[in-house]
Amino acid sequence: MPATSLHDQFRDVAFTTAVPFSRDRTDVRYDALADNVSQLYEAGARLFIPCGNTGEYYALTDDERIDVVESHVEATGDEATIVGGAAGNVPEVTALAEAYEAVGADAVMVMHPDHTYAHESGLLEYYDRICDATDLGVVVYKRGPELTRDVLAELSEREAVVAIKFADDDVKEFSQTVDDADGDVTWLNGIAERYALSFAIEGAEGYTTGVGNFVPEVTLELYDAIRAEEWDRARDLQQLLRPLEDIREESGTENDLAAANNVPVVKHGMDLAGYEGGPVRRPLVELPDDDKARVEDQYATIDAADPY
Amino acid sequence: MPATSLHDQFRDVAFTTAVPFSRDRTDVRYDALADNVSQLYEAGARLFIPCGNTGEYYALTDDERIDVVESHVEATGDEATIVGGAAGNVPEVTALAEAYEAVGADAVMVMHPDHTYAHESGLLEYYDRICDATDLGVVVYKRGPELTRDVLAELSEREAVVAIKFADDDVKEFSQTVDDADGDVTWLNGIAERYALSFAIEGAEGYTTGVGNFVPEVTLELYDAIRAEEWDRARDLQQLLRPLEDIREESGTENDLAAANNVPVVKHGMDLAGYEGGPVRRPLVELPDDDKARVEDQYATIDAADPY
Amino acid sequence: MPATSLHDQFRDVAFTTAVPFSRDRTDVRYDALADNVSQLYEAGARLFIPCGNTGEYYALTDDERIDVVESHVEATGDEATIVGGAAGNVPEVTALAEAYEAVGADAVMVMHPDHTYAHESGLLEYYDRICDATDLGVVVYKRGPELTRDVLAELSEREAVVAIKFADDDVKEFSQTVDDADGDVTWLNGIAERYALSFAIEGAEGYTTGVGNFVPEVTLELYDAIRAEEWDRARDLQQLLRPLEDIREESGTENDLAAANNVPVVKHGMDLAGYEGGPVRRPLVELPDDDKARVEDQYATIDAADPY
Amino acid sequence: MPATSLHDQFRDVAFTTAVPFSRDRTDVRYDALADNVSQLYEAGARLFIPCGNTGEYYALTDDERIDVVESHVEATGDEATIVGGAAGNVPEVTALAEAYEAVGADAVMVMHPDHTYAHESGLLEYYDRICDATDLGVVVYKRGPELTRDVLAELSEREAVVAIKFADDDVKEFSQTVDDADGDVTWLNGIAERYALSFAIEGAEGYTTGVGNFVPEVTLELYDAIRAEEWDRARDLQQLLRPLEDIREESGTENDLAAANNVPVVKHGMDLAGYEGGPVRRPLVELPDDDKARVEDQYATIDAADPY
Repeated sequence: MPATSLHDQFRDVAFTTAVPFSRDRTDVRYDALADNVSQLYEAGARLFIPCGNTGEYYALTDDERIDVVESHVEATGDEATIVGGAAGNVPEVTALAEAYEAVGADAVMVMHPDHTYAHESGLLEYYDRICDATDLGVVVYKRGPELTRDVLAELSEREAVVAIKFADDDVKEFSQTVDDADGDVTWLNGIAERYALSFAIEGAEGYTTGVGNFVPEVTLELYDAIRAEEWDRARDLQQLLRPLEDIREESGTENDLAAANNVPVVKHGMDLAGYEGGPVRRPLVELPDDDKARVEDQYATIDAADPY
Repeated sequence: MPATSLHDQFRDVAFTTAVPFSRDRTDVRYDALADNVSQLYEAGARLFIPCGNTGEYYALTDDERIDVVESHVEATGDEATIVGGAAGNVPEVTALAEAYEAVGADAVMVMHPDHTYAHESGLLEYYDRICDATDLGVVVYKRGPELTRDVLAELSEREAVVAIKFADDDVKEFSQTVDDADGDVTWLNGIAERYALSFAIEGAEGYTTGVGNFVPEVTLELYDAIRAEEWDRARDLQQLLRPLEDIREESGTENDLAAANNVPVVKHGMDLAGYEGGPVRRPLVELPDDDKARVEDQYATIDAADPY
Repeated sequence: MPATSLHDQFRDVAFTTAVPFSRDRTDVRYDALADNVSQLYEAGARLFIPCGNTGEYYALTDDERIDVVESHVEATGDEATIVGGAAGNVPEVTALAEAYEAVGADAVMVMHPDHTYAHESGLLEYYDRICDATDLGVVVYKRGPELTRDVLAELSEREAVVAIKFADDDVKEFSQTVDDADGDVTWLNGIAERYALSFAIEGAEGYTTGVGNFVPEVTLELYDAIRAEEWDRARDLQQLLRPLEDIREESGTENDLAAANNVPVVKHGMDLAGYEGGPVRRPLVELPDDDKARVEDQYATIDAADPY
Repeated sequence: MPATSLHDQFRDVAFTTAVPFSRDRTDVRYDALADNVSQLYEAGARLFIPCGNTGEYYALTDDERIDVVESHVEATGDEATIVGGAAGNVPEVTALAEAYEAVGADAVMVMHPDHTYAHESGLLEYYDRICDATDLGVVVYKRGPELTRDVLAELSEREAVVAIKFADDDVKEFSQTVDDADGDVTWLNGIAERYALSFAIEGAEGYTTGVGNFVPEVTLELYDAIRAEEWDRARDLQQLLRPLEDIREESGTENDLAAANNVPVVKHGMDLAGYEGGPVRRPLVELPDDDKARVEDQYATIDAADPY
């Protein structure tokens, strides 16, 4: 798929898919994963990001990461774009990118940097080396301070970079970054449905979704409303999905860490909606019962609203 | 070395050593590294943490990490304690720990968690699995919110855990954590000289140093003053070292990211003091000239003070 | 003016006016102030908020505050709405509100709370008492954490509350607050032009402006574009004004405090555009020369663009 | 009392006293206040700060503020130092200072600045004008970013400034500030018992207390242990008081605002200990029952420990 086409493929909802594990969480259930992804494709999903945070990237081995990406390639049709997440230093990311390419991925999303200390010029060189080392399209993932406006403006000029996932809750900074960056990239709102309208009005042409793993039609409907500039409809759909997103941001029980519910809510929703969710790996834990009940309520509300 | 002895070994200054690279930064210069470490040992350093942030952990390959740890084992005498840093998910950390043990390390320091989302119980299980999988002493590294007071109190009870490196600038939280944690661990102030007095008065029995890579005698002198409760002398030494630490916290030029100077200052200091510092790997870059000059001034001031 | 009409008056750009001082900053220049306000009225401004932060509220005496509000009433025509800012405890705010009413103001904006400690229920009672004590319409000003979503939802139900100025840069929270609040209030984006599009798409029907003090036509044009849902035009106008807003957010020279340039930029712009700006009172200081030059450049750019 | 003597008076525990109100909170109960203060004086308290945050400064009228300060002067013996809090712009603060002087106060504590925008030079001039306008000793109150290290270093040189209350939880910044400031001032740890050891080791010669309103002997004992460098005893006393301070930092019920319990815990403790606490004014509310029970438990624990 040529790079120009890739830019266009990112003008869509990007599904950051979850990975179903065996009951003891030891193994990835690739068949179940393939069923999930295939169902999403049938529901209209075209852009997939396996091995992101919702995919529990940091709890997977490299072999699993590659097999997860391959499962997406195989379980989807011709119109699908598959973007594998990869983190680490240059050799680590480029090795994964090479493997993703070998199994048929279209692009690699470089995860937000882990390095404890970094310099903007050093980060630029880091991304440049990755761009040079892969034939895949590169998606740059901004989350946290490391990728400054200047770095993103510079990276937008790289031919390999097809999209930038902007995942900080700062719509002013996003707006200014889009304006400052002269390169030809597709901008993704990386913080999902609750920011879908405000980031779209400032230049985002797509967004990433987690709840799309189990209510794909609703988030695709939201995307459609935004593209059509039907703002009242878009706001209604956004409000319909908001409570699920709010629960994901919570800590659950016996825990003070923010957003520990993030992936567990998605997986419980998948279980409810006929997808294969199941358990999460450590350092995450299952959703507490009362939060499960809240997710069930919200899922029922969405189902009853039948917006699509 | 039995665990009881390890606890005592951590009542010291912990040298988080830097790694010298070839001019093109492609290779680790193991001979130069061995010279550095051996010189530090001669200067009185006994506790070494290779493969930490000052050791550019995130820019090393696994093979390099293991060889760096081995170099420390070989370059130091019988009284040395060698603690290798390791990050990632359970299989990744335990594989590194096994390799560190094979080359003669005494302990493994589990780096602050990278996982984007975590739950306190899940983190506990994460550390428990690592503790179960290694015969090395385990050092827990708190930096950021993930390791809450409750998690640290629980981990302090694990037999494998010998020390906790507390690297948040919150002396009240540190004090309360030490008081809440009933287990037998050695508490390390993980944010170096500028916090050495205040954390010591609240229960820290050791601290980690970066500038110790090139002024080991001064930081060991500071440690001695604290142990002797000679607070005026300790404050003077702390103030002598403070400007170097302040420069490390800065961003350098053409950069907005905090502490990009952290490792470059250490390496430039090493070059000044007759150690092998040299270049840093990406995403870090060399120290700008004016910051080099400031480091030189401070180094000269310390040299002239000749406190030891 | 009946309350229903007031709600509608807030569907507009709210001009938070600056106060011109004598050269030694001792006296308010009421004639100059009246000229400024009258010019703004002629340029199309209809909604005025004297005695806000841009009006250096905290550096005025109570007598000056009242006279400043009165000047606005007298210098504007029948279509103007005048909203005086007031801060402090219940007796302090209600005394000012009474005085503002006596000089002809339409509403009182209660400044963000100063109290070091507060409880949500206590804040509700604080606002309720103010509402009970005045016949003016009340504008609630959210800036910082004190006015939570719950408090704002409750306050939206008060008959006296006609508008809520939301001045935190959190568009998700704004969106959720608007959705949760069932009362009949007009929502104002309280952080000006750079947030004008994103907050409008989430339910803001007006916004406050500082640069409107000297480029009123441009910000009114921006408002018009937003109302017309002409987003490309709106984005262009937003980008045209953005650099001025960015400079206002800066610290100037020999200073680390954020946004010290806020009012000085406005006053220098006023001097450039034929309004009476002049000096600022302590703890603010005049704009440094290089920032003055940057404001001049930006003003020239806007002038050349001649968007209206 | 000459300024040199004042400096010495601040080498002590500074009691930030609470103000008892009538049941409907309308009136200050001056007799009860005088009883409280007189009891504290008998218990050994010598340094009093009425009209601070614990004194609900922001909920008092100017007349009440002055009368509260006067009550302190009258209810205490010759050895007492009385420091009245004052906030606002220059005319507001100087008017209060003048009134405090007239009723016999020794010093005025200028509250942390309220001004929404400020410049460091402008702040300096603000404090200079206050210093020039009063014959009282001036206490500078740092809380939040406004009073930078540079501003404090400068203010330390003013003859009128006798003490600086440093109330940010940043012991490194405190240490550096003390080192940078060449002037002759007494440094107060402004965040009470939990920071008493760490700030003392870095140069604080006194600290402010809230719980001292009802357990004065314990906090004076802690101060004594610190002065004697009996660190184990000091740590024990600190740990004994810590839970009360932790509850003060909490939000109570039906509230998300931090530290809403701050003053209510103190007043409930006063009720328990035979002082006159009583209700708080809005925007604070009474302590919830379960928090009252926790305060009672802690008070009983302290009483049983009988450390003095």
